[in-house]
Amino acid sequence: MTAGATEARGNGPVNAAEAARRARATSRKLAVCSGKQRNAALLLAAERLEETEGQIVAANAEDLRAAETLVRAGKMSQAMLARLRVSEKSVADMAEKVRSVVRLPDPLGRKLSVMELDEGLVLTKESCPLGVVAVVFESRPDVVPQVASLALKAGNAILLKGGSEAAHTNEMLMSIWTAALEENGIPADAAQLLRSRADVMELLNLDRDVDLLIPRGGKEFVETISRQSRIPVLGHGQGICHVYVHRAADLGKAERILLDSKVDYPAACNAAETLLVDAAVARQFLPRAIEKLRAAGVELRGCDRTRAMVSAGVDPASERDWAAEYGELILSVKVVDGLDDAIQHIHQYGSSHTEAIVTEDSAAAERFLNEVDAAGVYHNASTRFADGYRYGLGAEVGISNGKLHARGPMGLDGLTTYKYKLRGSGQTVADYKTGKKFRHRPI
Amino acid sequence: MTAGATEARGNGPVNAAEAARRARATSRKLAVCSGKQRNAALLLAAERLEETEGQIVAANAEDLRAAETLVRAGKMSQAMLARLRVSEKSVADMAEKVRSVVRLPDPLGRKLSVMELDEGLVLTKESCPLGVVAVVFESRPDVVPQVASLALKAGNAILLKGGSEAAHTNEMLMSIWTAALEENGIPADAAQLLRSRADVMELLNLDRDVDLLIPRGGKEFVETISRQSRIPVLGHGQGICHVYVHRAADLGKAERILLDSKVDYPAACNAAETLLVDAAVARQFLPRAIEKLRAAGVELRGCDRTRAMVSAGVDPASERDWAAEYGELILSVKVVDGLDDAIQHIHQYGSSHTEAIVTEDSAAAERFLNEVDAAGVYHNASTRFADGYRYGLGAEVGISNGKLHARGPMGLDGLTTYKYKLRGSGQTVADYKTGKKFRHRPI
Repeated sequence: MTAGATEARGNGPVNAAEAARRARATSRKLAVCSGKQRNAALLLAAERLEETEGQIVAANAEDLRAAETLVRAGKMSQAMLARLRVSEKSVADMAEKVRSVVRLPDPLGRKLSVMELDEGLVLTKESCPLGVVAVVFESRPDVVPQVASLALKAGNAILLKGGSEAAHTNEMLMSIWTAALEENGIPADAAQLLRSRADVMELLNLDRDVDLLIPRGGKEFVETISRQSRIPVLGHGQGICHVYVHRAADLGKAERILLDSKVDYPAACNAAETLLVDAAVARQFLPRAIEKLRAAGVELRGCDRTRAMVSAGVDPASERDWAAEYGELILSVKVVDGLDDAIQHIHQYGSSHTEAIVTEDSAAAERFLNEVDAAGVYHNASTRFADGYRYGLGAEVGISNGKLHARGPMGLDGLTTYKYKLRGSGQTVADYKTGKKFRHRPI
Repeated sequence: MTAGATEARGNGPVNAAEAARRARATSRKLAVCSGKQRNAALLLAAERLEETEGQIVAANAEDLRAAETLVRAGKMSQAMLARLRVSEKSVADMAEKVRSVVRLPDPLGRKLSVMELDEGLVLTKESCPLGVVAVVFESRPDVVPQVASLALKAGNAILLKGGSEAAHTNEMLMSIWTAALEENGIPADAAQLLRSRADVMELLNLDRDVDLLIPRGGKEFVETISRQSRIPVLGHGQGICHVYVHRAADLGKAERILLDSKVDYPAACNAAETLLVDAAVARQFLPRAIEKLRAAGVELRGCDRTRAMVSAGVDPASERDWAAEYGELILSVKVVDGLDDAIQHIHQYGSSHTEAIVTEDSAAAERFLNEVDAAGVYHNASTRFADGYRYGLGAEVGISNGKLHARGPMGLDGLTTYKYKLRGSGQTVADYKTGKKFRHRPI
């Protein structure tokens, strides 16, 4: 996006600090909007997206033209170009996803606990919005309605910064979105687009007006943001996921799960990067599994024991391979001596994202599920299930492999916090130092 | 604490990185300890504290001697000296608090949600330990058993760094503590003491082995730690709490609540710093309230309207006063024009800690509780109730005024996270792209 284009469309906020200040002010109003009003605005937004699908596709065509030039110059990958494309079908999908958010239960005002501290003194822990959430992402314009709908459903104002390659599409989506909000009495400042990289850097210091920052992008991008931000950051660095084939595995299941985990969508963070096989079944399992993987185009890198069993087509794995998130059709393979060895390898090299065991031995499976320290621990299922939609969360704003606040696919819960409401009748703490006793009775 | 003393007692880990590595290894074992075993270790530790009360008090006497020299030299406050002191009664209190943690329900293995994604594919969101928690604190040696018991109850290994002024007391408490753990088959590395300031600085980079850092101390200390840490930090910066006397307040209640909020323990973060009074009742309320506050030794700083009503003994308040956490017997006073004005002031100057309204108008109270963005929002109760024990959480590891993970007094919940356990029967994601549909049925 050129500077000229920014100025031409520049009737939005002039800088990140001002945008954040407006977002904070608006968040006070959103916090007391009814669920009905939030849903009505979302339904209208979904409708408007469908009605203006032609304009969206036309704006996207402008971005695509610029992107194709970049691809020809070798400055953008074909994969990135593909993620940028918005068709009539994509717009219909966007609208449907917004409607699926409407159908989710209201995440606000839920009583998480109620306790009578004493007669006439009742403490209620109640869910409420975070306030202002910022999301920085690349390429895929469908992030705009998806994240904006989750934010609004959870009563938050949102600041969005997309990649410049999608500038026209994102601007069009946002103008449709905010017009629909305003028609429902919700201020347009509830969803604002940031327009420059400088805005992102400025954003990182706005801890007074922004409550949460979600960077969606590569490992280095997320790490840089995390290190420099004064705002709390949730996001995933890496997905180094393992499929562990236990000695008591059904080898047919193991093969299907392994192939799905690696091949279904290798660029995803929940794709498998390493296969661990028990020595007891390796000789039986590996030749056939490796043949199938190779037929699917997977390049293999194995430990010495693997290579001793499967002579052809397996390169030697180095220490770097065990810690690699390939993100493409490459798989490292290691023969391990049982469950403890597998868990030890996973803790040493894994990224606490999603880890799977394949076995018919339920005791071994339960040990794996209890002992492996990761956001997702799976028994006889593909690592690719780690996803907000598949988990039934409706959608996700991201996948966290930190342990605080939200872990794994992060849906509406990750966009809320809680407050303690204490309703009394004149109580003082001094009373409880001179005789009065607390009841602490859960209600 | 002198270097000599460190070396003499130095059979512990030599540096923070090694301590953290051992804590991580031990945390894997703690995560699968039964609740029974964790409670048994805590009960034994409580018993041992009582049995060795003489040794604890003697170790404390050594710290007190050194501290008294510092006080005489003007290098330590009397208040800090008082917080350092451990009596026989304090040891009995420590043991009783450990037992109260034993009585809390097990925070681990709770099923937070169970969903059938499809036939034979069940997703369980289950609470589990964070892993390794570090707490940096000052003076009060009773923090050692309190925090260590919460950490163990929640299945975490803990790293503790106390102030050098309490070194002998803390060492004694820790040696009693870890001996009791070991008697119950729990590795001593589950609770380790860090011994130098350099350890704290080293700790901040150990994000691979430490999951959460809780700094307990002054605002600047917490801010410095937060800014430099690569480990997630939870802690409170400030407590700028308000008592708002609404026009429909019972003025007797208002007076009692105000006095308790300010005078009960002014150094606490949940003490009130500012009184907001509706103009409609200010002339009636202020003279008497201010008289009582002054009788309790409170220095007053008022806005112009306040000073116009109460001529004597109220200094003019400056802009700095509205944003001040006095932590002592000083109160700023402002006359406001109703609820909206009060809320606006609280959002502008407050620290989102604890905010109270006094009123008999329940609609106004509900508006205040819903609209004020703070960890605690109170109707007709003293701000001093913001405390883990009073909330019925058993105890607290700290009070957070961030909004992520834990907000307000942080008990066992703040020391746990969750994992998603997915139990399947060979499912792949590809199946759901070619016909199979998710059920997403909550169980």
